[in-house]
Amino acid sequence: MRILGVDPGTLVTGFGIIDFKDNEISYIASGVIRIPAVNDFSVRLKKIHDDLTAVIKKYKPDEFALETAFYGKNVQSALKIGYARGVSLLTAAQNNLTVREYSPREVKKAVCGKGSSSKQQIQFMISKICAIKTSDLKYDETDALAVAVCHAFKFKSPSSNSKSSNWKEFIEKNPDRVVS
Amino acid sequence: MRILGVDPGTLVTGFGIIDFKDNEISYIASGVIRIPAVNDFSVRLKKIHDDLTAVIKKYKPDEFALETAFYGKNVQSALKIGYARGVSLLTAAQNNLTVREYSPREVKKAVCGKGSSSKQQIQFMISKICAIKTSDLKYDETDALAVAVCHAFKFKSPSSNSKSSNWKEFIEKNPDRVVS
Repeated sequence: MRILGVDPGTLVTGFGIIDFKDNEISYIASGVIRIPAVNDFSVRLKKIHDDLTAVIKKYKPDEFALETAFYGKNVQSALKIGYARGVSLLTAAQNNLTVREYSPREVKKAVCGKGSSSKQQIQFMISKICAIKTSDLKYDETDALAVAVCHAFKFKSPSSNSKSSNWKEFIEKNPDRVVS
Repeated sequence: MRILGVDPGTLVTGFGIIDFKDNEISYIASGVIRIPAVNDFSVRLKKIHDDLTAVIKKYKPDEFALETAFYGKNVQSALKIGYARGVSLLTAAQNNLTVREYSPREVKKAVCGKGSSSKQQIQFMISKICAIKTSDLKYDETDALAVAVCHAFKFKSPSSNSKSSNWKEFIEKNPDRVVS
């Protein structure tokens, strides 16, 4: 399963792609979409849309994980973050990808074990999990990889991904948990 | 000049199209994009994008006016409104339309003369300005028409649209104001 993680912003949007197979994570690619700091937001959003579409066409992910929720208090900032997220969500839908959203706290907890971890701690853990040198990567890139890794971990853990309402559904979703 | 006014929302997005020629406003069309109330926002945003693109292709506006700014205090609401606005801004850019943004207060002031006017007052004024029966129209529709009318009025009024820094620029922008 190939996972695309996206950390959307109106100046820099990070993306990270990992493969998750047999409980192993391997790094595929990552990068940042640098958005021109023009006043016209429609121009900025077109850049996010075009570049994100190109990334999807190139790497063909099966899953799309997005960093979401916003804990700040500034309504105008939330609105602008909303612009970038809205365009990311649209791009996913246009490419028939279902989006899973994770809050920054969930991502940090999944990757570092603590919801209040710093960007440096995330970078360190991503270097270990993905077996890559992260010192050359931007924080937006490691953050996006962390979202992808968080999604992989949620898939791995049956308790968190499958909200099964009965045993039949649970067994269908987790055939490896059946002792035959 | 044909103006498309848009009032974006995540459940209903209103649009209104007017022609503005020789200081006269004529109603062309208006409607609402009803968005399925599904949890998956990417599906909702695709609906806004697809329908708004179809409206632009059909009516070929020259100008795109958007209701913007958000006066509420709820950050999560701002984020969701941001999704719908972001997708509207993107749709404009994809169709080479420059977006002008107007706050609800600006729109109300332009249409009704008072920034605190009610939706009913806007509906009444739109029926007068556009010479149409607005009782069958939804508020989202009349709000979108109001955004378009606001944009037309801003064009009409040299003081508000042209922030000229010198007389040469002012004369170039407003040749009709020169007494020869």
